[in-house]
Amino acid sequence: MKKPHIVILGAGYGGIMTTVKLQKSLKVEDASITLVNNHDYHYQTTWLHENAAGTIHDEKTRIPIRDLIMNKKVSFIPDTVVSIHPEQKKIKLKENDCLYYDILVIGLGIEPAIPNIPGAEEYSLTVHDINSARYLREHLEFNFASYQNEKEKDPGRLNIVLAGSGYPVIELAGELANRIPELCKAYDVEKSLVRIINLEESSHVFSQFDSQLAEYAMNSLTSRGIEFITGVTPKECREDRIVYEKDHKTKHLLTRTIICTDSVQASSVLEDVSAMNSNGKVDVQKDMRTMEHDNIFVLGSAAQVFSEGRQCSYPPTVRATVQQSAVVAHNIKAILNNEEIIHFHPSFLGTATSLGHNDGISEGTNGRKLFGWKAAFMKIMNENRYLLELGGPSLLMKKGKFNFF
Amino acid sequence: MKKPHIVILGAGYGGIMTTVKLQKSLKVEDASITLVNNHDYHYQTTWLHENAAGTIHDEKTRIPIRDLIMNKKVSFIPDTVVSIHPEQKKIKLKENDCLYYDILVIGLGIEPAIPNIPGAEEYSLTVHDINSARYLREHLEFNFASYQNEKEKDPGRLNIVLAGSGYPVIELAGELANRIPELCKAYDVEKSLVRIINLEESSHVFSQFDSQLAEYAMNSLTSRGIEFITGVTPKECREDRIVYEKDHKTKHLLTRTIICTDSVQASSVLEDVSAMNSNGKVDVQKDMRTMEHDNIFVLGSAAQVFSEGRQCSYPPTVRATVQQSAVVAHNIKAILNNEEIIHFHPSFLGTATSLGHNDGISEGTNGRKLFGWKAAFMKIMNENRYLLELGGPSLLMKKGKFNFF
Repeated sequence: MKKPHIVILGAGYGGIMTTVKLQKSLKVEDASITLVNNHDYHYQTTWLHENAAGTIHDEKTRIPIRDLIMNKKVSFIPDTVVSIHPEQKKIKLKENDCLYYDILVIGLGIEPAIPNIPGAEEYSLTVHDINSARYLREHLEFNFASYQNEKEKDPGRLNIVLAGSGYPVIELAGELANRIPELCKAYDVEKSLVRIINLEESSHVFSQFDSQLAEYAMNSLTSRGIEFITGVTPKECREDRIVYEKDHKTKHLLTRTIICTDSVQASSVLEDVSAMNSNGKVDVQKDMRTMEHDNIFVLGSAAQVFSEGRQCSYPPTVRATVQQSAVVAHNIKAILNNEEIIHFHPSFLGTATSLGHNDGISEGTNGRKLFGWKAAFMKIMNENRYLLELGGPSLLMKKGKFNFF
Repeated sequence: MKKPHIVILGAGYGGIMTTVKLQKSLKVEDASITLVNNHDYHYQTTWLHENAAGTIHDEKTRIPIRDLIMNKKVSFIPDTVVSIHPEQKKIKLKENDCLYYDILVIGLGIEPAIPNIPGAEEYSLTVHDINSARYLREHLEFNFASYQNEKEKDPGRLNIVLAGSGYPVIELAGELANRIPELCKAYDVEKSLVRIINLEESSHVFSQFDSQLAEYAMNSLTSRGIEFITGVTPKECREDRIVYEKDHKTKHLLTRTIICTDSVQASSVLEDVSAMNSNGKVDVQKDMRTMEHDNIFVLGSAAQVFSEGRQCSYPPTVRATVQQSAVVAHNIKAILNNEEIIHFHPSFLGTATSLGHNDGISEGTNGRKLFGWKAAFMKIMNENRYLLELGGPSLLMKKGKFNFF
């Protein structure tokens, strides 16, 4: 009898944790496992704002996949998924031959959606993977170096615009506030010439937070020089500026750095498997399988758990994805052995948002609020816990964060 | 009686060494000394190719002027010289009030001359100071990061064109050959996609070297992937390419990095003092004073010593400039004390050209040739000797090069 073939697409939090759990729980003779990912490394998405600001090098964020998988149990194919064909249980890859699966796990994550503003595709930046984070880091350094080296100085080179006020933008603002003084020193730029400006469409920033936490975040960021402009309608991105409307007036803000990290949607290849819902995600059942296919699991930020006629609402945290990977790994083993499958019951420790090294805000599910270094410490502990779970103490020692203060 | 006022313009090799020597040999009551420089740091011009390639950080190359001067003897003014008026013994500065001198020392060095090719001003890069070296370093990293992050990849981002084959170009090529593998690793770029191409107008490269040394340099650089194209007439620099003619055919070479470091001329402000000769330099007498003014000294790369009806010919090395600073400092003291002035008699140790860390070629005045690590070692020893002379053992320990192998 042929061994069942489990294919895992994507080595983000969901995909890599499912792989690691399966290679522990399954024997070589139980199944063959193939992992497909477009890079030969896994990375921590929640650290990308630090890579982008330049406060943590991307080498620290990346973990080679070969360090995480057991070669005798898992085959790794570095490639990009072109399309999925559920009726033939087939996956088309860009460089390699087609793959055929018996059980499929999709952890392809989300893609940035370009804001619907003229010029945004050409002139706005996102932070959604190692390449784009690394690009932003170099873009900032390049503009500081250019400013110092050009005869006719363009003040826009020193203006950084952050659009929106979602978690990634806040965290990036916090890191940039810490990074800018270093950049000023390295490039002999007067700190007062540098502006970090948050443009927000609504009349309030941080509306997603409890008011006490929002106030703390606002104070922390403004005290470090971040400016907030609310009630803004972006009109156009150009090479050297952003054009926006406020109070029915058109404003031009000189800048070469417009960062939009708010809009995201599920990886487009998921549409081959299941229709996207209005949130740009795929509905899955409580056992993490899609509505349509009982041999296809979807997990992570592209999955929305559907239960008892309504969507489960929970913050899309790493913790939730890791919990889902445990459900997926358990259920795959259960399917192979005809055992009982289990359901995903999110148990949350709350959310923590960094405001730069050593500062942050967090809120537990019990409503407990934390500010400053306590929240930052909690976030770092969560990240270290993840590394421990993924690769044991040796990975934690290599990639963990230990410079708490 | 008013103390005589000595003004030193420029804190390059010549200016800073004259200042340091004068503050040792003169007492506070002998004269007041003012040093003017456009940055608050001195730097080693001979290290700029390393800063530009990114193999040595510019922080290592820079030395804060406050660490070199004695405040009670020397006043430092960070400013740019606008013009010199010898008849009024006056110097106009950009930001500060005019300065009046009794004795003037000019060590303003040389400026890059933009090649006379359409687009060169906009699209070619030079390496002539910390700002431009730092810019090139970031320009390279920015292009590697951009290449990885763009959908439609522009192979020109990975092509580096070096125009001409003077010392600075060869040294930069050697450093780049060492740096590129690091950049490829940091940005996940296939090394075979990167090209470093030297475009040379004449039919031979390295014609300024002894044939044995030239052959060694050629072998060393080509073995590390540098390509040489000779008999080239550059026609146009564009944002994404260089256009040149070879064998009566027009060629387009995709690149975003065109580096021209060959053409230099004396700082334009020197024309206020003395007419430039056909080499773009100022003729000085053997006591380092200009032909026209017996209270104005010029030294360093902008000065050409004129003696017995002909120009002294010697390579414009750091060693020669340091020797000139000793002559200038001695002669200023001699003028103040009505003692005998001395002449500049260059005594050379030869020239050493780096081909990247741990490799080089050198030729002594006795005709002795050195290759490889011996030449590189000799160059590093010269550089360390200079630091010792400038700031004593503590400066040598802080800024010296000690990683020989």
